[in-house]
Amino acid sequence: MTNQQFKKNNIHAPQTKDKSLRIIPLGGLGEVGRNMTLIEYEKKILIIDVGLRMPEEDMPGIDFIIPDTTYIEKRKNDVLGIVFTHGHYDHIGAFPYLIKKIFRNNLKIFASGLTKGIILKRQTDFLDQPKLNIQEVRDGSKIQLGAFKIEFFKQNHSIPDNMGLLIETPIGNILHTSDFKFDNNPVNDSPTNFNKLKQLSERGILLMLSDSTGAEEEGHSLSEKDISENLEEIFKKSNGRIISATFSSLLNRVQQLISLSEKYKRKVCVEGYSMKSNIKLSQSLGYIKAKKETFIKTKNAKDYPDNRVTVLCTGAQGESEAALMRITSKEHRFLRIKGGDTLIFSSSVIPGNERTVQIMKDEILRQGAKVYHYKMMDIHAGGHAKKEELEEMLKIMKPKFFMPNHGQLSMLFAHAEIAKKIGISPKNIIVAENGQVISLSANKVFIEKKRVPSNYVMVDGLGVGDVGEIVLRDRKMLADDGMFVIITVVNKQTGKIINSPDIISRGFVYLRESKNLLAETRKKTLAVIKKTTKTGGATNWTYVKNQLRNEIGRFLFTKTKRRPMVLPVIIEV
Amino acid sequence: MTNQQFKKNNIHAPQTKDKSLRIIPLGGLGEVGRNMTLIEYEKKILIIDVGLRMPEEDMPGIDFIIPDTTYIEKRKNDVLGIVFTHGHYDHIGAFPYLIKKIFRNNLKIFASGLTKGIILKRQTDFLDQPKLNIQEVRDGSKIQLGAFKIEFFKQNHSIPDNMGLLIETPIGNILHTSDFKFDNNPVNDSPTNFNKLKQLSERGILLMLSDSTGAEEEGHSLSEKDISENLEEIFKKSNGRIISATFSSLLNRVQQLISLSEKYKRKVCVEGYSMKSNIKLSQSLGYIKAKKETFIKTKNAKDYPDNRVTVLCTGAQGESEAALMRITSKEHRFLRIKGGDTLIFSSSVIPGNERTVQIMKDEILRQGAKVYHYKMMDIHAGGHAKKEELEEMLKIMKPKFFMPNHGQLSMLFAHAEIAKKIGISPKNIIVAENGQVISLSANKVFIEKKRVPSNYVMVDGLGVGDVGEIVLRDRKMLADDGMFVIITVVNKQTGKIINSPDIISRGFVYLRESKNLLAETRKKTLAVIKKTTKTGGATNWTYVKNQLRNEIGRFLFTKTKRRPMVLPVIIEV
Repeated sequence: MTNQQFKKNNIHAPQTKDKSLRIIPLGGLGEVGRNMTLIEYEKKILIIDVGLRMPEEDMPGIDFIIPDTTYIEKRKNDVLGIVFTHGHYDHIGAFPYLIKKIFRNNLKIFASGLTKGIILKRQTDFLDQPKLNIQEVRDGSKIQLGAFKIEFFKQNHSIPDNMGLLIETPIGNILHTSDFKFDNNPVNDSPTNFNKLKQLSERGILLMLSDSTGAEEEGHSLSEKDISENLEEIFKKSNGRIISATFSSLLNRVQQLISLSEKYKRKVCVEGYSMKSNIKLSQSLGYIKAKKETFIKTKNAKDYPDNRVTVLCTGAQGESEAALMRITSKEHRFLRIKGGDTLIFSSSVIPGNERTVQIMKDEILRQGAKVYHYKMMDIHAGGHAKKEELEEMLKIMKPKFFMPNHGQLSMLFAHAEIAKKIGISPKNIIVAENGQVISLSANKVFIEKKRVPSNYVMVDGLGVGDVGEIVLRDRKMLADDGMFVIITVVNKQTGKIINSPDIISRGFVYLRESKNLLAETRKKTLAVIKKTTKTGGATNWTYVKNQLRNEIGRFLFTKTKRRPMVLPVIIEV
Repeated sequence: MTNQQFKKNNIHAPQTKDKSLRIIPLGGLGEVGRNMTLIEYEKKILIIDVGLRMPEEDMPGIDFIIPDTTYIEKRKNDVLGIVFTHGHYDHIGAFPYLIKKIFRNNLKIFASGLTKGIILKRQTDFLDQPKLNIQEVRDGSKIQLGAFKIEFFKQNHSIPDNMGLLIETPIGNILHTSDFKFDNNPVNDSPTNFNKLKQLSERGILLMLSDSTGAEEEGHSLSEKDISENLEEIFKKSNGRIISATFSSLLNRVQQLISLSEKYKRKVCVEGYSMKSNIKLSQSLGYIKAKKETFIKTKNAKDYPDNRVTVLCTGAQGESEAALMRITSKEHRFLRIKGGDTLIFSSSVIPGNERTVQIMKDEILRQGAKVYHYKMMDIHAGGHAKKEELEEMLKIMKPKFFMPNHGQLSMLFAHAEIAKKIGISPKNIIVAENGQVISLSANKVFIEKKRVPSNYVMVDGLGVGDVGEIVLRDRKMLADDGMFVIITVVNKQTGKIINSPDIISRGFVYLRESKNLLAETRKKTLAVIKKTTKTGGATNWTYVKNQLRNEIGRFLFTKTKRRPMVLPVIIEV
């Protein structure tokens, strides 16, 4: 980028050649979700998104994972402001945790109308939250935050009011795509404005950060119009109720299902807390359009003929507490699956949920309904650009430097390959990881040696970050083979055992059918204690307990080939 | 089926019109794996396959699930014999458990050469197994078992020596496809013999049981020849080591990788217990062909240039103990991933393993290797016929009655749709479930009212069937929020508490950082005991413990929003 360009762009050229800007991803790289990126210049920090992600399979009991924000907590006065791209939880979900740590008066926060609405609604679910002043932005809005001038531009995605960012900085322009797809026929939204994208490109893009979630998928994402047409086919054919499950955050899909229901004279019952509250909020803000009389209470659905009813519900991932699972398992207050029903799963299955969804689908078939899912026909489109669109975006923006954003490492690498293919030099492409510090100047991009903290911070109930490796390891061990507590009471003075050891065990064997094993274990316990205490002098109870743990553990393994967590307790009275 | 046909087929027509035969699936319907089917006629039972399956996600600690064989255990003298279709564990894996229960002298067992070899090898992993006399069959073999005359015919699959069954019965012919695909260019195997299939069909098929695993997949399965060609492309391009992970039971793929290594002058190191023993066994039986000098010990691989080495290993599913995971996590004795390596995942990802495989793939990329997997190019073909082939099989066999076999309920339904499409009357199609009894006569097929036991029998270590609902529920509860044991010692005579309650907790909170919570819980415990025992008279300790469980549980939930398993222990001394 030349000085010429900087002048044209009406921003200051860097004062010294090596004056650099730093990009610090705290989340979203090498993972799907938990998106949070810092941009730092002269010690001042701009925050983009504060998302959460779902736990991995080996994290039992964990609700979700949020970014480690240590780096900014210590420097809250350096935070220029927070900018949100859109209202999905992987971009806003960790905000209530962060804001408690870095809040100060006049902290600037920017979000589009719907995103703001979703953030404020979520704040009400948390205690002790500060009162926020979120400034609303829209397509074309420009704001100044310290040395950064940010222009918001609309990007198509699966939720309305999604904003990409053009960030003018003293060393050049950074383009942040947000999550995006190109859609010439979206629902409830205007088509991708390629002219606008080209105008942004003409201002010169030093660095582009672009959504990599779809970088391993061939071709072009489906248009929402195609999805609508396929869904309409199902509406035409269905003579009974339509029960449609999708993510409550997939607001464009929710709109389609409501519009089709209206067209085919069906009333809509909404089931599931998040579905209800998202529809209510989006309606009140004008992002979902529906006639008032379209919605009926579920308990009144029985008063309408089956072919006049649509149920719009959560639970397409087989979540155990969600509406669809309660309906399927016959625990729902008003709804049961019946012959003639048509079930539409209008969402993809998140990796890891396949087996649960399969079991639910089978159960629905067993109860006599027809099932449509995205593998059978195109009734779901993801919100993320695939290879063709990513290539197109790169060709439009022609960034000097490129950093694949948002996604598993394999997706970032795949995105980097696309950039190489269109001619970006490999040395200008940065595949980074969370916590790395990417140093950017007008002529160079590289990863600094030092990192900032970017650990998983696990949320479990009210606890944030208090469940660590040890607690998780214990949970996994307990899950695999259960636990086995042996309690022995000894006389403080004599060291003699007072009563037969008590055994408390859960998740190991069915105790009632294991009386012999328990009796043998008691005998073994007495023998171990006798052996380890007979040396005379003061007893080393820690040693005795260690011996008990090892020997009883070994004994139980020999008998069962299971390794329950053995916890010996010795009480002196 | 007319009497005319029965004569032509050289089997006896039924003596009375309503004399019927019964098909009893004990496993494999409504699930993938655990295949086991009984065919019963005049109280005599033929057993086809005795498979196992992997546990579901909500079954922590379970090794696998086997069929409930109660129905035959009571009637072992009625068992005519056991027939195996092929050597995959979902068809033979539960055999060591079953055989201990129904063994008698002269029990007849039939399997092809490779299948027999795998079964006998597996028997050596178990204690107290009877000595077996398995009779070897091959393509075209005919055997008589009571009223059943069985002809074995070769079917293509992902393992050699796979046999479909034509079972002549007194009421008509039953065709059991085994797992199959049509392949005109298989590896290490002859192409599908369509003439033979047509000859079988000409004998008249009363009922067909056909593999439904691929019934939801469009099109035709890939030929192994295409896979070979794509794998060869990778071999041509690779300048470093090739590390190739697949299922050890996918013997045809294993052969391809060995043959390609030989062609490209690479030595092969075999890693992983099951991979080593399967290759050794198959080589000794002639089912895998390789030069002796092709194989080298892994510790000697360093003596060869990288482009002369192939590592053939287990672990493509991200199994934590398998070879590839040990290599990736730098725990392998001799192997580390390095720049220049090419990783080939030549298998699909089993639903439920996606996230684990993704994490492993990312780690391999991080360590600098290239990664190829089946989503990027066709380097894996499943062993199961897809829609086109299933339709073709139905058209060839023209069965009067049709019962989709092997697969989730959604697959069975999809297979039934294919049968309807080619003109089989819906009333002649039976979508059955495990434990149902399908009554078949020459003119009618229906599901009887009574069922036979077909529960999940869970294997955990040495225990078979001893882990039930309660143990599993406890494990899940322990996994989610851990456990919390409170031990109080009281004086037997006075009922007074002797010492401050002891607390043992794991998987709940990090105890060192929760001193206040523990102190409060102790106080609360004393208060509850005081309150519940103050009524005078003999203390009802069960009542006290229930109160403690409830009140402490509630207290901990208020403080943490977690629900550990609370276990109060009161010891009287």
